[in-house]
Amino acid sequence: MKHISSRDNPAVKALAKLAGTAGKRGAPVLLDGVHLCQAWLQHHGAPDQAVFDVDRLSQADIAALAAAVPDSRCLALDARLMQSVASVESGQGVAFLVTPPALELPVAVEENCVLFDRIQDPGNVGTLLRTCAAAGVKRVFLATGTAAAWSPKVVRSGQGAHFALAIHEHVDLAGLLPRLRVPLVATALDGAQNLYAGRLPAQCAWVFGHEGQGVAPALLAAAKLKVWIPHDAVAVESLNVGAAAAICLFEQRRQALGERA
Amino acid sequence: MKHISSRDNPAVKALAKLAGTAGKRGAPVLLDGVHLCQAWLQHHGAPDQAVFDVDRLSQADIAALAAAVPDSRCLALDARLMQSVASVESGQGVAFLVTPPALELPVAVEENCVLFDRIQDPGNVGTLLRTCAAAGVKRVFLATGTAAAWSPKVVRSGQGAHFALAIHEHVDLAGLLPRLRVPLVATALDGAQNLYAGRLPAQCAWVFGHEGQGVAPALLAAAKLKVWIPHDAVAVESLNVGAAAAICLFEQRRQALGERA
Repeated sequence: MKHISSRDNPAVKALAKLAGTAGKRGAPVLLDGVHLCQAWLQHHGAPDQAVFDVDRLSQADIAALAAAVPDSRCLALDARLMQSVASVESGQGVAFLVTPPALELPVAVEENCVLFDRIQDPGNVGTLLRTCAAAGVKRVFLATGTAAAWSPKVVRSGQGAHFALAIHEHVDLAGLLPRLRVPLVATALDGAQNLYAGRLPAQCAWVFGHEGQGVAPALLAAAKLKVWIPHDAVAVESLNVGAAAAICLFEQRRQALGERA
Repeated sequence: MKHISSRDNPAVKALAKLAGTAGKRGAPVLLDGVHLCQAWLQHHGAPDQAVFDVDRLSQADIAALAAAVPDSRCLALDARLMQSVASVESGQGVAFLVTPPALELPVAVEENCVLFDRIQDPGNVGTLLRTCAAAGVKRVFLATGTAAAWSPKVVRSGQGAHFALAIHEHVDLAGLLPRLRVPLVATALDGAQNLYAGRLPAQCAWVFGHEGQGVAPALLAAAKLKVWIPHDAVAVESLNVGAAAAICLFEQRRQALGERA
């Protein structure tokens, strides 16, 4: 493995620059830490490049990651250089440079999926991706105006969910509707039915909306089913979008698993 | 209403200083924006002090807030001064200075409640408070080591939940256990039962744990019931703590409401 000690090395400079970017369309992404790198390996195989803190290469989990990547793609960095590359303060001594898969929009969507309608907060988007993967969802569509899925903060909040999902970004959700072969289900406060009042579709397209404005009117109008979560409305007006999505997706999962209380 | 135009006014200086603090124990708190101020009024009545952007006093929602506070406690600030007081960039022209209620630990806890075991992230703590209030929980206990409940970021994420809850901070959770007259229920991966496999207690003390480490071993050992959420463990290792709590609290609520799918 090549060992680099100079801050002026072009590869180090390029990596440090990347760590500060916000997940631009089509750009390579730096995955920071043992867990994310393991998850990438598991789902996608070797990264474009792997960088390691030279002092920690003997650590078991780091060594296992190094062994799984072709040596020509590995770089060992002095500890202080590694710090300039890592995007979080407590770097774990490993980072992978990867290229997120470029996905074509499917001609027809026939399975459970989730539409993100302009969700602004990177923490919310990351948590939502994690919840989708945990609920067994395989495909998500992020509208233009949603926080960038591959930004460092969203990738960190996702905790590996990115690698278990087909993530379509910059999607025109209204334009996607004709491709849906499953019913569109939205959360709403008006004209909606209690989430627990009936059987949910086994496969559907859930849409969750903007933190302040909720789901866009055009999408609400197109929804085959609108549901509301029976919360204590005297205490708070509404739920956080990530909490609401978790409740909806796992109520659907509970019904699908056939488990009854 | 007194009108202030000078940055050197002692009241303005004190408020600006407060906007940057992190919610210290017993300290007054600045609530920023129409929604939070309305929620405070609804639950606790008049604030210690109210400040308004003088240019927006004619706006209906701002005027309604001003009318609800004794004039002696109101200050009208020039717009540029208001900006130095508001804790978020897009100030809405109103902020309340309030003192969070100081609460004694109850001798016996006989109702549904939630224990926060060293939850680190302010966004998670705020979302969790909002979910608790939405689920009808009235009382929460935050362990020492949990993010400060009354910091500006947590108050913003809470969206008014703070005013519908009795919030006990800096609690020794192990010391609290003898006061619980309801069973302790924890989420866990080992030795736990499927959340959907049985009937949940109608009243219990839920404990949700640290983002990385989960619930502390001493609390897990004291739990009468340990539950796991049947998620897709191949896709992601675990759920975000806020998502997990939303799923648990609303499954309990679903059962309590007697609503069946």
